[in-house]
Amino acid sequence: MIHFAQFGAGRIGAIHAANLAASGDARLKHVVDVHAPAAQALAAKHGAAVSDTATALADPEVRAVIIASSTDTHADLVIAAARAGKAIFCEKPIDLSLARVDACLAEVRKAGVPMLVGFNRRFDPSFAELHRRIGAGAIGAVEQVIITSRDPGPPPVSYVKVSGGLFRDMTIHDFDMARWMLGEEPIEVFAHGANLVDPAIGAAGDIDSAMVLLKTASGRMAHINNSRRASYGYDQRVEVFGSAGRLIAGNRTPTTVELADANAVSADKPMHFFLERYAEAYRIELQAFLDALTKGAPMPVGAEDGRQALVLADAAFESLRTGRPVRVA
Amino acid sequence: MIHFAQFGAGRIGAIHAANLAASGDARLKHVVDVHAPAAQALAAKHGAAVSDTATALADPEVRAVIIASSTDTHADLVIAAARAGKAIFCEKPIDLSLARVDACLAEVRKAGVPMLVGFNRRFDPSFAELHRRIGAGAIGAVEQVIITSRDPGPPPVSYVKVSGGLFRDMTIHDFDMARWMLGEEPIEVFAHGANLVDPAIGAAGDIDSAMVLLKTASGRMAHINNSRRASYGYDQRVEVFGSAGRLIAGNRTPTTVELADANAVSADKPMHFFLERYAEAYRIELQAFLDALTKGAPMPVGAEDGRQALVLADAAFESLRTGRPVRVA
Amino acid sequence: MIHFAQFGAGRIGAIHAANLAASGDARLKHVVDVHAPAAQALAAKHGAAVSDTATALADPEVRAVIIASSTDTHADLVIAAARAGKAIFCEKPIDLSLARVDACLAEVRKAGVPMLVGFNRRFDPSFAELHRRIGAGAIGAVEQVIITSRDPGPPPVSYVKVSGGLFRDMTIHDFDMARWMLGEEPIEVFAHGANLVDPAIGAAGDIDSAMVLLKTASGRMAHINNSRRASYGYDQRVEVFGSAGRLIAGNRTPTTVELADANAVSADKPMHFFLERYAEAYRIELQAFLDALTKGAPMPVGAEDGRQALVLADAAFESLRTGRPVRVA
Amino acid sequence: MIHFAQFGAGRIGAIHAANLAASGDARLKHVVDVHAPAAQALAAKHGAAVSDTATALADPEVRAVIIASSTDTHADLVIAAARAGKAIFCEKPIDLSLARVDACLAEVRKAGVPMLVGFNRRFDPSFAELHRRIGAGAIGAVEQVIITSRDPGPPPVSYVKVSGGLFRDMTIHDFDMARWMLGEEPIEVFAHGANLVDPAIGAAGDIDSAMVLLKTASGRMAHINNSRRASYGYDQRVEVFGSAGRLIAGNRTPTTVELADANAVSADKPMHFFLERYAEAYRIELQAFLDALTKGAPMPVGAEDGRQALVLADAAFESLRTGRPVRVA
Repeated sequence: MIHFAQFGAGRIGAIHAANLAASGDARLKHVVDVHAPAAQALAAKHGAAVSDTATALADPEVRAVIIASSTDTHADLVIAAARAGKAIFCEKPIDLSLARVDACLAEVRKAGVPMLVGFNRRFDPSFAELHRRIGAGAIGAVEQVIITSRDPGPPPVSYVKVSGGLFRDMTIHDFDMARWMLGEEPIEVFAHGANLVDPAIGAAGDIDSAMVLLKTASGRMAHINNSRRASYGYDQRVEVFGSAGRLIAGNRTPTTVELADANAVSADKPMHFFLERYAEAYRIELQAFLDALTKGAPMPVGAEDGRQALVLADAAFESLRTGRPVRVA
Repeated sequence: MIHFAQFGAGRIGAIHAANLAASGDARLKHVVDVHAPAAQALAAKHGAAVSDTATALADPEVRAVIIASSTDTHADLVIAAARAGKAIFCEKPIDLSLARVDACLAEVRKAGVPMLVGFNRRFDPSFAELHRRIGAGAIGAVEQVIITSRDPGPPPVSYVKVSGGLFRDMTIHDFDMARWMLGEEPIEVFAHGANLVDPAIGAAGDIDSAMVLLKTASGRMAHINNSRRASYGYDQRVEVFGSAGRLIAGNRTPTTVELADANAVSADKPMHFFLERYAEAYRIELQAFLDALTKGAPMPVGAEDGRQALVLADAAFESLRTGRPVRVA
Repeated sequence: MIHFAQFGAGRIGAIHAANLAASGDARLKHVVDVHAPAAQALAAKHGAAVSDTATALADPEVRAVIIASSTDTHADLVIAAARAGKAIFCEKPIDLSLARVDACLAEVRKAGVPMLVGFNRRFDPSFAELHRRIGAGAIGAVEQVIITSRDPGPPPVSYVKVSGGLFRDMTIHDFDMARWMLGEEPIEVFAHGANLVDPAIGAAGDIDSAMVLLKTASGRMAHINNSRRASYGYDQRVEVFGSAGRLIAGNRTPTTVELADANAVSADKPMHFFLERYAEAYRIELQAFLDALTKGAPMPVGAEDGRQALVLADAAFESLRTGRPVRVA
Repeated sequence: MIHFAQFGAGRIGAIHAANLAASGDARLKHVVDVHAPAAQALAAKHGAAVSDTATALADPEVRAVIIASSTDTHADLVIAAARAGKAIFCEKPIDLSLARVDACLAEVRKAGVPMLVGFNRRFDPSFAELHRRIGAGAIGAVEQVIITSRDPGPPPVSYVKVSGGLFRDMTIHDFDMARWMLGEEPIEVFAHGANLVDPAIGAAGDIDSAMVLLKTASGRMAHINNSRRASYGYDQRVEVFGSAGRLIAGNRTPTTVELADANAVSADKPMHFFLERYAEAYRIELQAFLDALTKGAPMPVGAEDGRQALVLADAAFESLRTGRPVRVA
């Protein structure tokens, strides 16, 4: 039984806490949130205490933390948790600044604590199975990857302003997916971006539509397309082309009902958004973290992965700014 | 180059004549139709003569006939063509009376002429491929067959009155398909029927909706469902279950376009009706007839097949009348 | 917070207990099972007591029972629970004997306790949505229903012998589904059955393959096909044809991964069996029971539904025995 | 009845000649090919004369020409046909040199003759229907386009050497498709390319794998992915994302047969290559040319379209050479 402290009692925090409770391997002992009622509600539901950061991290019984608070607090909490010797489950991104991320990584390395960065899509059963089959040789050598990633609707502009921008907030998931599927590090990023969805996003200095090209040293290529609006639901698909075939993981739907009438044959739209689509991924992700702690299973997405996705996001912004492809180490 | 006489210059006749012309192996020499303008138009299009039956059958250059006239003329034409020693391509059904069909078969057998009965669905590329894979062992031993066969809309009541009724006019195709897919003769027929679509069909003494069960001596089973109305187009599907798997042949669509919008993800309805869905089947069917004549290929659907489908249709009517399952030899 | 006693700590019992725990509205207080270790394990997991039937039913705090023990114990437990004034959630079937079922219904009616019979498929999101759309008029008036229900592999013969036979054990779910989708009571049953899968099942006096036809007074029809073996997984589909269109609910798959290689374009088989396919249905089913108890929501599948499905199963056996269609009141 | 001269009696020439014959509106009068046996065979089949270029173009009865000879002869034939006042159907590309294309266009314009460039994909029923629905407003304003275009296997290196390279030979179709779907001219091209399929192609100085990004002045974007190898068949798909939805046109398959067995649920691979996939497109394309000549229908893909696709292909090569995005007027 591993005792946890959790930072953040919002929407994602509630998911992680429920998955902890259902896992049978863990117990939530402390909930920390600046918003007291949220902390109290979540703590009450799971029999945990409402604590402050120092108390939670000072508790010797606490072996691991979940960091699901607002992005700007992640880095400080990662550093504090590492110094306290706790295993760390940190929602993405670690931070919007590469320098800060590097500071975190240095502390984590120094402390020797295990850390998982919450790229939840790696745990989606369909994407994970696609990746497994690449490894099993189903399509030979990987040559090209196409990632379609489109949100059902734009976030509020207040969120956009603190998000770090489309590439660091949204595409960062796709950069991680591209690295994972390519099986080789990208060395160049080229990005197009535009403000086609919501003028307020453009007014806030961000884009809401993008297409990105990546390439690796051996000539593998990846394409990412993003939009902050997909009227038909959360569009999350991956295609991988190899020397011997093609793998696709498509959208999931709430039901399999199909209607044929005088107009068309019509089926469900994709699941609405990440809470529905990735519900199972969140559960499996937390279990993977627990398995790494309790059974010595490898930590599936490490701090370095969090860093590399940010490197690509930064390069995409630089490409957008300059109109040129940008090399990454 | 095989010279043909064709009886019937209507919709189906026009299809067969065009396929003859495109085949390269055949020439249409005589067109016979009681409706003179239709005969003249079709003859002119293909450089054929408008003839009467006697003239066409007396022409020693004519080696084969296509019988695509109204159903009540088929039997006389089959008999006359057989006596004249011509190879016979006859649209289904041979006749609505089993006694008349037997008379035709006797003449055909006596004359020793080859005969194909136009069960066009056997030549549909999807159904033919499904059948080929059964033979190749893809699903082991066949156990159950489900045939869905639904027309987009009911025919005029004037047609219903001379059609021989739903089982002899429409289900007869499905009885043939069931025999073909089961790979064993049905020995019992049980049928439900109802008048759910058009009260005028009921007033004319026919049904427009049916479900049929067939079984064979070894315990294989088939189900057929029919309706004279499918608002979404011509619904033509086959499922075959075997000891090692399942084969399905679904509907075909005009295009592969799929629209995702705020309502649904929607695709094309099935092709509208038999002229579209079975255009390719009609072409392949005629080519199979030509190949049997010119290359010694086996005649793929013989007169006996036409007879057996009618036996099952008659049994279905008897079952509907009595409310009991009916044995067939 | 509703307190429960649960009878049966096996595979299905474990599912219901976990769903109870996760619901937040209920507490499992007593676990009763003749197999003590199973009872102890489940009770320990959920903080319940291991009890005997009398103790559990005598506890005034217990408001509801879950009956998930072996079929031959259901009727006695239903009667005892009814007499004790408890709300009843009873796995299907209530009993294999219609007389016993009627005795149960009389006691339940006399006691005035609410009762849900576990036809879990009504709670499957796809089937429930299909049914909802029929009610919303999506396909006009229902005319025909096709239910495909095939298990991945046959049960042990020891189970077959006490199962009541294919129609009462397996098809009973489909009879319930047919009634629900038809929206009108069947008045006639005709059944074919055969022993095609496992000779040992035939030796035990049962069939493993079946096709059934049902009709209603107004002429609506339903077809059911069953097999105890589907090499490709649990095949659970429903098609409903109406005056204005067609609704289909298909199989669900573990992932959306699709592989295209030199052989074919291939996708996942259906989910393996009922535990996977209906995991969500079991959860929703129990929640519906709780909502009926706590919020006055209607009880969605009542004792009378359990009885009617058995009436149809009995009629199917009679049809199989006599080779004739059988009328049901 | 329009009389044609056709240049080229190879594989594509045979298709156009057969479509001419079947159209009913046209007659093939002259066949010109440097390979005499091919010319004779095709001429014999369609009752045409074998002629030389001068004779064919001097025939006053000839109103239109089909240019389906090798690419290096297109420009001279276009110019000669224009000067002779003939309507021109020219296979793509007009020429591999933009200067030569411009010379052709000047002559065509001067002569005032109608010209269609053979971008056959615009006539594919699925792509044409997708485009029609964009115009009908089905997805609102177009924002992003994704074109997947992958050949089943690489051509011989001898062909690669005279092909003008991947972008001018293969991607040129996709550049045309991108322009057509975007509804706005691209102003910038960025291309990645690699030699991943066949080292001999690299040795010949060409690439066999590519990803391209295009953007328009208003911020619309398109992505193209190409490979000279797709083990699973000819992969030809288009996705268009708009403000109100998404349209996809997928691959077409030979049959609808689906096999479910112990391994997977598998369906047909896409049609093998362009002759199968675009058979219907070639027929419709030629009919559109005839309709433009006989009924005053607009010429659907003009000489200017042929030029613009080449401009984009040249820019892609320049981008590949320099590693930079390239502006196009």
